[in-house]
Amino acid sequence: MRTTSGWQSSDGTTALQRVTIERRELRPDDIAVRVDYCGVCHSDLHRIHGMLGEEGLVPGHEFTGEVAAVGSGVTRFAVGDRVAVGTIVDSCGECAMCRAGQENYCVHGAVTTYGGKAGLKGGYSREYVLREKFAFPLPAGLDPATAAPLLCAGITVWEPMVAAGVGPGTRLAVAGLGGLGHLAVKLGAALGAEVTVLSRSADKRDDALALGASGLLVSTDEAQLAQAHGRFDVVIDTISADHDLSPLLRLLGLDGTLCSLGSPFLSGPRLLELVYGRKRLTSSGTGGILHTEELLRFCAEHGVAADVEILPSSRVQEALDRLDEGDVRYRFVLDLSDLDALAA
Amino acid sequence: MRTTSGWQSSDGTTALQRVTIERRELRPDDIAVRVDYCGVCHSDLHRIHGMLGEEGLVPGHEFTGEVAAVGSGVTRFAVGDRVAVGTIVDSCGECAMCRAGQENYCVHGAVTTYGGKAGLKGGYSREYVLREKFAFPLPAGLDPATAAPLLCAGITVWEPMVAAGVGPGTRLAVAGLGGLGHLAVKLGAALGAEVTVLSRSADKRDDALALGASGLLVSTDEAQLAQAHGRFDVVIDTISADHDLSPLLRLLGLDGTLCSLGSPFLSGPRLLELVYGRKRLTSSGTGGILHTEELLRFCAEHGVAADVEILPSSRVQEALDRLDEGDVRYRFVLDLSDLDALAA
Repeated sequence: MRTTSGWQSSDGTTALQRVTIERRELRPDDIAVRVDYCGVCHSDLHRIHGMLGEEGLVPGHEFTGEVAAVGSGVTRFAVGDRVAVGTIVDSCGECAMCRAGQENYCVHGAVTTYGGKAGLKGGYSREYVLREKFAFPLPAGLDPATAAPLLCAGITVWEPMVAAGVGPGTRLAVAGLGGLGHLAVKLGAALGAEVTVLSRSADKRDDALALGASGLLVSTDEAQLAQAHGRFDVVIDTISADHDLSPLLRLLGLDGTLCSLGSPFLSGPRLLELVYGRKRLTSSGTGGILHTEELLRFCAEHGVAADVEILPSSRVQEALDRLDEGDVRYRFVLDLSDLDALAA
Repeated sequence: MRTTSGWQSSDGTTALQRVTIERRELRPDDIAVRVDYCGVCHSDLHRIHGMLGEEGLVPGHEFTGEVAAVGSGVTRFAVGDRVAVGTIVDSCGECAMCRAGQENYCVHGAVTTYGGKAGLKGGYSREYVLREKFAFPLPAGLDPATAAPLLCAGITVWEPMVAAGVGPGTRLAVAGLGGLGHLAVKLGAALGAEVTVLSRSADKRDDALALGASGLLVSTDEAQLAQAHGRFDVVIDTISADHDLSPLLRLLGLDGTLCSLGSPFLSGPRLLELVYGRKRLTSSGTGGILHTEELLRFCAEHGVAADVEILPSSRVQEALDRLDEGDVRYRFVLDLSDLDALAA
């Protein structure tokens, strides 16, 4: 076994503790990644809070680093290559979803980067081992710290936007301006869409414009919402708190799509709310290899990355707690290099 | 005022009674239609059962006949022309939906053929008056009795199928084999889709094949459903009873669309059920002028019409009650000509 260290919750609280982590010996098609930067995702918080008697959880599923070692049969990577890893690290490879490049929807269940059926420890650690197929070369021009959130927050908004046809001229609204939302604004603008941010207050207007939006609608202002009835082709909803989808549906025009990403346990509205305008309600979860490669290329070409606040990994609790309070612009990224000194 | 006669419910029961109906004098752009055949729609039954102290309701919003008189400014019709009328008879004409040819979604509320905000009496009558804009020339080659159901049942399934991209090679499932469902099968097959019927029992297999389906899945057979996971691109759900949408969603493949039409008051499933495969839930309601014209042309070219059981209009209660029991293959059409003798 290979050993490294990382940050683990053992009790369902955000008081993560430094632990030694064992990684498997490299199989022929495995690479070992020295993790340099790992984003802090809302789902990390959900998983910690949802721990049910399971043994320690090491979160982290959007990280970047360098290849530290390669298995005997590895062909795509060499030691020292810059690399990125996202939310899934294996899948059957044979089902219709895998064949379509959507390993995230593998009908046999993809292996998630941490805590899933394989019980893996995630990227809040200094080293990670995975099949080379599921690692991505980090394109030149992308900074490893600001690129890390592309691997979950970024791909989570990218895939449904592309699937909904977001492009030049699309009237796109983005609800919620956190990790996912701010990347939806940046990516939507880079795709040529006319982007409007929906926010509970007008405070974020300057931020929204700086991210590439052309305006902001205050979602608590009934008059503003009424004026915007039917105005949008696509609404990307990244709000993670429980909320009513009806006001968002009313913003859609004919054949418009509401893609609601932040609250998977929310119940859909009555079908009647989809009737007038033949609206579509959809959702999705992260992305497959094909579209993640596409996203990284696009971001390198268009200079898109996350706006991040970098903290040494020893301050992981602060990052999680501030994320819980919505106090982050727009994504925390942990710098894992401090683990070397802590382990010495 | 013009007078005619028709069949009215005054008490929320299906014991409709023959009454004299007043129609407005023709405005310059109005035509008067002699109603020959009117389909009996499930929504007629819903509206009768849902009467809340309102004065008499004369249902009927899918009918065919001949132009009996024209207003001074009418340009598209002459007396004696074959004509068809659907679910809406006026709209603002200026909103984004009307400009897009989707008067059915007029943001100011379309005027429905009966019982809506204008309180009109519907097509269970011998004469109807409407703006020529909302009447359709009945193409040569379409039989007026079997074409009548195209104006509601037909367009209700046609628009969402076309919007969902149903065409050659589409793997289409149709749930429910009533008025809407049997036309979805016929139209889907005529569009080139590979059509499968979902039914609670295998009894309808021969009927399904005769309508153009290539197979039938028994929706109560868990093994059959499991085998069909992810098999379809589009599911058109015409089931009018309350039902669980989850089994239908599981039949969809990547980016598949479930269009649920029969139960508008049903609540949508949890968003999580849309995640795996990035599925879309949608609905819609009847159709606009543009697509109704398109449907009538398509049906004339492809020889598609409803399978109907024609009853003299005096047997309207029998039609409504048997429809309520699901005892119709596949649409009742009332022959209104008996009203002439009854009135004499």
